[in-house]
Amino acid sequence: MVKWRNGEIPLNIDILSENNRLAERNRGYFEGRQVVCLNLVSSPGSGKTTILEKTIASMIARRKIFVIEGDQQTARDAERIEKSGAPAIQINTGSGCHLDANMIQLALKKMEVTAGSVLFIENVGNLVCPAMFDLGEEKRVVVISVTEGDDKPLKYPYMFQSSHLCIINKTDLLPYVDFNVETVMANARQINPTLEFLLMSAKTGEGMKQWVEWVEGLKD
Amino acid sequence: MVKWRNGEIPLNIDILSENNRLAERNRGYFEGRQVVCLNLVSSPGSGKTTILEKTIASMIARRKIFVIEGDQQTARDAERIEKSGAPAIQINTGSGCHLDANMIQLALKKMEVTAGSVLFIENVGNLVCPAMFDLGEEKRVVVISVTEGDDKPLKYPYMFQSSHLCIINKTDLLPYVDFNVETVMANARQINPTLEFLLMSAKTGEGMKQWVEWVEGLKD
Repeated sequence: MVKWRNGEIPLNIDILSENNRLAERNRGYFEGRQVVCLNLVSSPGSGKTTILEKTIASMIARRKIFVIEGDQQTARDAERIEKSGAPAIQINTGSGCHLDANMIQLALKKMEVTAGSVLFIENVGNLVCPAMFDLGEEKRVVVISVTEGDDKPLKYPYMFQSSHLCIINKTDLLPYVDFNVETVMANARQINPTLEFLLMSAKTGEGMKQWVEWVEGLKD
Repeated sequence: MVKWRNGEIPLNIDILSENNRLAERNRGYFEGRQVVCLNLVSSPGSGKTTILEKTIASMIARRKIFVIEGDQQTARDAERIEKSGAPAIQINTGSGCHLDANMIQLALKKMEVTAGSVLFIENVGNLVCPAMFDLGEEKRVVVISVTEGDDKPLKYPYMFQSSHLCIINKTDLLPYVDFNVETVMANARQINPTLEFLLMSAKTGEGMKQWVEWVEGLKD
């Protein structure tokens, strides 16, 4: 078995430093406007949109919520979110693999995110590229579903390293899959010792109360 | 709801055309050596490695098999494959989000892929970026697990457009998830009318016989 590392393309540095600059501007905007911004990242199909639908249903009576949706194509997720009662903007990245800070800045010019609200950004389903792009969020939340395997934090370390909270979703499927919750947590802590965890089944509602409390406990 | 498209970075064109050139060289190498090369792509955790383990067990008596494994980190997959009895090379892409043709060319210099064999490339788990990078494979196989949702071909169209076969995996979980096989096929055919489909549960063995026949039916 032979191993080697892919050489980095130097240009990446410029793209990332420009993104970091714009991300700080977004961060300032959110602070200035007293908006809590969360960036939800995961593989495709981990359940981010369903989590957001349920979150909106739980929180909307107490707190204004706005959503920015990222996908390569379709406006399906933004349509689902708007049905749940929160204004949503859909960004289609085309062949692009992640949202970047500039896209968020442009979206903020089109959507009046009111003071004291929570802005959820649902990133493109991709455990790799969105890890590199700060959007100016206060917290990054990585979602992993129990069907994906408990070794994923080791294989995709950048995403778990850069996140604050890890939602382990679809716990209703635990009886049917080979997935050990303790193992996934231990693997993720190897990468990021301060990562928090939350077990959830957006389908059955398990963990939703704790999640909403976690979000509402963040200061804007 | 507002939609717009991310502007492409012109540099991408140069990276892709250079990759396409090297991919054609790989294609020539495989043809010259009478090797069937398949590129397996999917989200993280769709079951590609398990499919390969079972495939090796089914085919190894009749056909030599080699594997190139792509992951951001760890040599876990190559270790699993070697236990199944096929030589494997692990490529760690670091922060990179896909394998490229040059990485395959370098791997081919380190692994003696014998004439008449099958070379499986398991790409980095990512439904976005690997779509853009031809590796010189004869066929591209996209794996989607039934836990990922039947709308994924519409949201990640490039991958389904560029693939020849779509394996719908983890059919053993169909009773527990909201996933309609007819819907996912219809969505994928909207993107790629000639895409073939194969239902599989690598866990129970469903579809394995048809898959092995499909692979063995490809001319080298």
